[in-house]
Amino acid sequence: MKQSQLFTKTRKETPKDEVSTSAQLLIRAGFVHKELAGVYSFLPLGVRVMKRIIKIIKAEMDTLGGVELYLSALQDPEIWKATDRWNDASIDIWFKTKLKNDTELGLGLTHEEPLTRMLRDHISSYRDLPRYVYQFQTKFRNEVRAKSGLIRTREFLMKDLYSFNATVAELDIFYEKVGKAYERIFRAVGLGEKTFRTFASGGAFSKFSHEYQTVCDAGEDTIYLAMDQSVAVNKEVFTDEVLKDLGKKKTDFVQARAIEVGNIFKLGTRFSEALGLMFTDERGASAPVVMGSYGIGPARVMAAIVELHHDGKGIIWPKSVGPFDVHVVEINAKHTNEVANSANELVVQLEKQGMAVLHDDRDLSPGQKFADSDLIGIPVRVVVSEKTVKAGKLEVKHRADGEVEHLDTTQLASRLR
Amino acid sequence: MKQSQLFTKTRKETPKDEVSTSAQLLIRAGFVHKELAGVYSFLPLGVRVMKRIIKIIKAEMDTLGGVELYLSALQDPEIWKATDRWNDASIDIWFKTKLKNDTELGLGLTHEEPLTRMLRDHISSYRDLPRYVYQFQTKFRNEVRAKSGLIRTREFLMKDLYSFNATVAELDIFYEKVGKAYERIFRAVGLGEKTFRTFASGGAFSKFSHEYQTVCDAGEDTIYLAMDQSVAVNKEVFTDEVLKDLGKKKTDFVQARAIEVGNIFKLGTRFSEALGLMFTDERGASAPVVMGSYGIGPARVMAAIVELHHDGKGIIWPKSVGPFDVHVVEINAKHTNEVANSANELVVQLEKQGMAVLHDDRDLSPGQKFADSDLIGIPVRVVVSEKTVKAGKLEVKHRADGEVEHLDTTQLASRLR
Repeated sequence: MKQSQLFTKTRKETPKDEVSTSAQLLIRAGFVHKELAGVYSFLPLGVRVMKRIIKIIKAEMDTLGGVELYLSALQDPEIWKATDRWNDASIDIWFKTKLKNDTELGLGLTHEEPLTRMLRDHISSYRDLPRYVYQFQTKFRNEVRAKSGLIRTREFLMKDLYSFNATVAELDIFYEKVGKAYERIFRAVGLGEKTFRTFASGGAFSKFSHEYQTVCDAGEDTIYLAMDQSVAVNKEVFTDEVLKDLGKKKTDFVQARAIEVGNIFKLGTRFSEALGLMFTDERGASAPVVMGSYGIGPARVMAAIVELHHDGKGIIWPKSVGPFDVHVVEINAKHTNEVANSANELVVQLEKQGMAVLHDDRDLSPGQKFADSDLIGIPVRVVVSEKTVKAGKLEVKHRADGEVEHLDTTQLASRLR
Repeated sequence: MKQSQLFTKTRKETPKDEVSTSAQLLIRAGFVHKELAGVYSFLPLGVRVMKRIIKIIKAEMDTLGGVELYLSALQDPEIWKATDRWNDASIDIWFKTKLKNDTELGLGLTHEEPLTRMLRDHISSYRDLPRYVYQFQTKFRNEVRAKSGLIRTREFLMKDLYSFNATVAELDIFYEKVGKAYERIFRAVGLGEKTFRTFASGGAFSKFSHEYQTVCDAGEDTIYLAMDQSVAVNKEVFTDEVLKDLGKKKTDFVQARAIEVGNIFKLGTRFSEALGLMFTDERGASAPVVMGSYGIGPARVMAAIVELHHDGKGIIWPKSVGPFDVHVVEINAKHTNEVANSANELVVQLEKQGMAVLHDDRDLSPGQKFADSDLIGIPVRVVVSEKTVKAGKLEVKHRADGEVEHLDTTQLASRLR
């Protein structure tokens, strides 16, 4: 894509209303636009990063045997009343609205209730189990505080996977499988080293759930991480009783700020019982389906990546999730056809090899172009100028370490794979 | 994909609360699920059709030079007040909600306002024009009546493209280009023959807009179609004055019901003036940007396709948008490995050639399987049974005309391309 076609302009000044580094950089570089506190739109560069994160997550969901669906945002209060999650006393972050006839509706903040109701039409026997379904869908949450940029928003895309099993033993096995898939996902997007499976509250129906917490100062959560990194515990369950269960003592841990990038939750029969999702087992007895739910917020993942991968000049995208693979920066002050053709040809060659390329064809100074390139943070930059055309080799600069290599296009393509 | 993994069960009985054939069939076959009047969730088959429709639309948007972004659903009232579109008196289909501090927010029913405001940061000179941006994003509309299934819903995905030009002449050229792209899209999804570019009201700032209307009985709109199909006019502008403009008389037309599957609209400077989206032209003068907007609702397109392409047994998907390319129906009453292996092998071979395959591996009677297959409507069905394994050739049945061919896999793959 030509950068002249990308309508977004970068900003030098840091937005005054953002405290998190990720929001500041993502806004300055033109990935997101703030509409309201806690409400962001995604600009073309942001859409591209989100699609790459989604693709990585989707592949793992498919491997788990998940089937993709898409549930509505508008919610029927009746099913939420049946599970006692409609009242502000139990869930205090609903956005509610009304039909013209004054019927109240909710905006989905999660989807256990409609999915459980829907599956009553499709599950009746043990032969219909297990079922694993997931979606990438927009959640609405009426947060009182929304000050951490993309880390806590009032509207956000969520990947939510739900499991439906016949037995707790089957749920336990699937739950661990999802955990492994989550670890692969967080490694793939560049969060692996700093992301820890963390004991968290299990609610009324399970001793623990697990959160995937990425340690970084911008995080809103407080966790306790064992010095040897073998175990992490959310502050909310960092009690003597829990530590005894884990065979640890308080002094084994250090406190850290962290971003919850994912969670996995054993729901048991809480929703299936309340909404009547029953099945007939192999002996002909009726039993409630055993459920689990598993979330990841792709935009929060994007923010966490930027928190971990940036420097004073801007973002440093891991290769797996950058908006483009290569940034071709054309420096052509004299507007010669030779340089322009060379840049165009390079873009075509790289694209032929499957690379996504951003081509800075704009009529700006080299300084402005390099500053923008550093800010946007595409993993590899290739300059095409009168000098490089003469030299016949590409000057390839890696954003992460600033290392410069002189390569031809085949070498570059193989380096990026 | 194995059909045993697809959790949806088909229904024999027609849902009593749906009057449109498309909603009845899409629910019975397991493409969509009704949550509330005018609110539908998409089941795995429905998600797959939607993705194919979206892909066709996206390719045309990219060809037009469009860049994809994604705007928030939650809306700041201030910008809608600036254009006088916040009051119920001007727009009576808002869903409104509130933050915890009682600040009112809207749920986006279209996106001219936030986009125009956002582009103030990115457009200042004629050098920043033209700009074309689009998104696939969920709109919310508080419709009083929502009785036509997926044809009029309260929550729906929309492809909305917006154009930003320096002059009306440039807008006019782009507008016609979009019209051509729309015609290619509607042809590609199987609506071409019955879809007509239709004169419609242009609002306060343009004489006409154009709707793309698919003629069918389930449509909510009334249009007048010239007997020679050279021109179509929406009822709302079917006046003597307009007919005179078009050089036609009333008796040249027949009345028809139609579904509005898309629209294209010249906005002029209505929004840029109200929200201050100005640019400096080549002579240094300041002028408001000239805008256009262009919508298609993929789910409405899906419904229109079903309205046009079905028979007494179920849906008949055009090849371009079917949830799968091939339905492999395994008939294996004796549960022999020979038949099962043959079916599995066929699926692998077809998938290798790039086909999307649904493999009915369920333990049901042939009658039930064929009825489901006809209802779901995948373009081509291949039966694998003891008989076909012996014969060594595939029995390929085309859903559209019931024609049966005996082919090998290479022939089948080339037939489906």
